Amino acid sequence: MSQRTRLTPEQRREQLLDLGIRLFAHHSLDEMSIDLVAREAGISRGLLYHYFGDKTAFREAVVRRAAEALVAQTEPPATGEPVERLLHSMAAYVDFVDANYEGYVSMVRGAASDPVLREIYDDAFGALGGRIFEAAPDFVPDTPAARLVVRGWLAMSEELVLSWKKDPAGLSREDLLGLLAGSLPMLLDSLET
Amino acid sequence: MSQRTRLTPEQRREQLLDLGIRLFAHHSLDEMSIDLVAREAGISRGLLYHYFGDKTAFREAVVRRAAEALVAQTEPPATGEPVERLLHSMAAYVDFVDANYEGYVSMVRGAASDPVLREIYDDAFGALGGRIFEAAPDFVPDTPAARLVVRGWLAMSEELVLSWKKDPAGLSREDLLGLLAGSLPMLLDSLET
Repeated sequence: MSQRTRLTPEQRREQLLDLGIRLFAHHSLDEMSIDLVAREAGISRGLLYHYFGDKTAFREAVVRRAAEALVAQTEPPATGEPVERLLHSMAAYVDFVDANYEGYVSMVRGAASDPVLREIYDDAFGALGGRIFEAAPDFVPDTPAARLVVRGWLAMSEELVLSWKKDPAGLSREDLLGLLAGSLPMLLDSLET
Repeated sequence: MSQRTRLTPEQRREQLLDLGIRLFAHHSLDEMSIDLVAREAGISRGLLYHYFGDKTAFREAVVRRAAEALVAQTEPPATGEPVERLLHSMAAYVDFVDANYEGYVSMVRGAASDPVLREIYDDAFGALGGRIFEAAPDFVPDTPAARLVVRGWLAMSEELVLSWKKDPAGLSREDLLGLLAGSLPMLLDSLET
């Protein structure tokens, strides 16, 4: 108790967000009730409301934190061949979805219907897509058409990883990664012909 | 008025669904209020409730009808080269999204959050995907991995068409169709190597 009171409000908020992120791994956003979070944190519902305003604000903060973690964890290595760097980044993406399946699926669904979640989601995927152009300007010409293709490829990648997680369909993780990282250059090449 | 009363309840229901489909072209599901539909149909709100129960049931019936129309309109020609048949089907898909953009976008979003709409959507895309295997068994080997790839390719196609509709990014309709129809064989080929 004495330790708890020594935390600043900002630290306490951070601590609750860390808990939210841990819950996100195995709970949908709908399951992340104030009751559950307060119980897991060992605090009162009132205190949780005090730090986040309401359930929606807490969820948004968790999704924002999850989206930041996704972007950070999929950062490609600074050097190496473009395809290798893409493979590395996609491996991190597969691992992120694998480790946070329930939360991730509900984030995707929430983004379709909730404008705030959609903005967080779009920002994250905008960052993932934009990074491809920054990381490999020789490999990927930055044109509006290429940006369109990258958007489509990201949508395919998400569908493939989520479907594979439900049913691997005989594909190993390496098969999946080969498909994900190999398809982008092919799609971009087909744009030029 | 005399003509209206001569319709059977089933015919009247069909007529209202036809109106719903016309509204679907340029209205989101959220915009398709009982007020709007009743006004457009020239009937009372009460009569609309009588035929469909409630607003949700009407929306579901309209989405079901729209999904059926999508599957029917994208039916590939019975003969021809696989790639040509796929091109034909994708052209019909692009035209459907183009003609029903507002309703289609809201159907996609609704499917993410509403279980009933999701089932209708999944059934329609299951039919679109399954048809690819029925139409061209030599072209597309029907394996679980190929089914997974087709799911991903459909997700990419949807994203590409919706993004292209918002901003063509310098791509003509033919460029887009070439990208859509050309990418599936490439993706399936990359699965085999």
